[in-house]
Amino acid sequence: MPAPIEFWFDFSSPYGYIAAELIDEVAARQGRSVNWHPVLLGPIFKAVGTAPLTTLPIKGEYSKHDFARMARYHKVAFRLPEKFPVGTQVAARAYYLIADGDAAKARDFAKRVFRAYFAQGRDVADPAVVMELAAAAGADVSALAGPLKGEAIKERVKAEVDDAMKAGVFGSPYFIVDGEPFWGVDRIPVMEEWIRTGGW
Amino acid sequence: MPAPIEFWFDFSSPYGYIAAELIDEVAARQGRSVNWHPVLLGPIFKAVGTAPLTTLPIKGEYSKHDFARMARYHKVAFRLPEKFPVGTQVAARAYYLIADGDAAKARDFAKRVFRAYFAQGRDVADPAVVMELAAAAGADVSALAGPLKGEAIKERVKAEVDDAMKAGVFGSPYFIVDGEPFWGVDRIPVMEEWIRTGGW
Repeated sequence: MPAPIEFWFDFSSPYGYIAAELIDEVAARQGRSVNWHPVLLGPIFKAVGTAPLTTLPIKGEYSKHDFARMARYHKVAFRLPEKFPVGTQVAARAYYLIADGDAAKARDFAKRVFRAYFAQGRDVADPAVVMELAAAAGADVSALAGPLKGEAIKERVKAEVDDAMKAGVFGSPYFIVDGEPFWGVDRIPVMEEWIRTGGW
Repeated sequence: MPAPIEFWFDFSSPYGYIAAELIDEVAARQGRSVNWHPVLLGPIFKAVGTAPLTTLPIKGEYSKHDFARMARYHKVAFRLPEKFPVGTQVAARAYYLIADGDAAKARDFAKRVFRAYFAQGRDVADPAVVMELAAAAGADVSALAGPLKGEAIKERVKAEVDDAMKAGVFGSPYFIVDGEPFWGVDRIPVMEEWIRTGGW
């Protein structure tokens, strides 16, 4: 069984969203599965000493233009949300709670969160919106509500972020496959060629 | 006559080097010419508030790995020089002095500087190396030596850097074609598709 593609992202990352729309098809083409890992870029950027792209002078304006252009290039619906970026702790916590019961539902939930935020402009930092998207993905929201407010899942997400940093993750999207790291939606074709050829 | 591709780079930029090896073929395929603009990333990074990739924790190590991998992906000879980055003022000044007489020679000189630095590990900050490469490109080095030390060419390079910043350039490689900006060697396929289709 070939190793899965490990896929890290923040729900507030435009390039992470585009990658989430593309990765399943790439993986299927190469006979790989994908392990999804929502993380929080806040603590990761702090550790690396970087800032969100859109906050940088000049580069920020270019980035906003490039988000939309890359989405169109890949035929992915996109509109930069008015409130950007947003906190994605609640969505990440809900993801891992759902994933513990059913990985496929969690993945469906993740795609719904991304589309709600980047295609429909909804506020995915709002716990009510998160619960609605969880329900739409078929999760048992009555069982989710309690644990979502608990300490355990906060610690779990923190541990996932720590593990990501230990693996070298410093941005979104970030992939590792067969030990090889790839950062950015623009490295997906390079990663596919790497998998296809066994590296070079 | 369709507009040329404007191409900005720093001679010390690995992705700029890879782009320099690729851009002529892309441009020829799309019936465009290319205007080459060597600039200095030092003052540009200062204005934008960014730092050279390789100086950042974690991201720096990944970048070094990615430089070499992207070079192999594009079948471009590459070895990260021991002395990296280097000052590229002298090479940039020589470029514009040569270009004022003969644009084709200047382009040949630019490719020789990049290859000398990134494929052969030579110190292209050394004026003697720059002069040797200028001679190899067919430039009249006896006519070059004087102006290369003068104030006028320093001011000229400063003006080129200012013009680049006014055009929005914040990294290397950076392209503008038909008013559309593209940053990074990984945007070259996107730019080619943009030119081919007239945008989307």
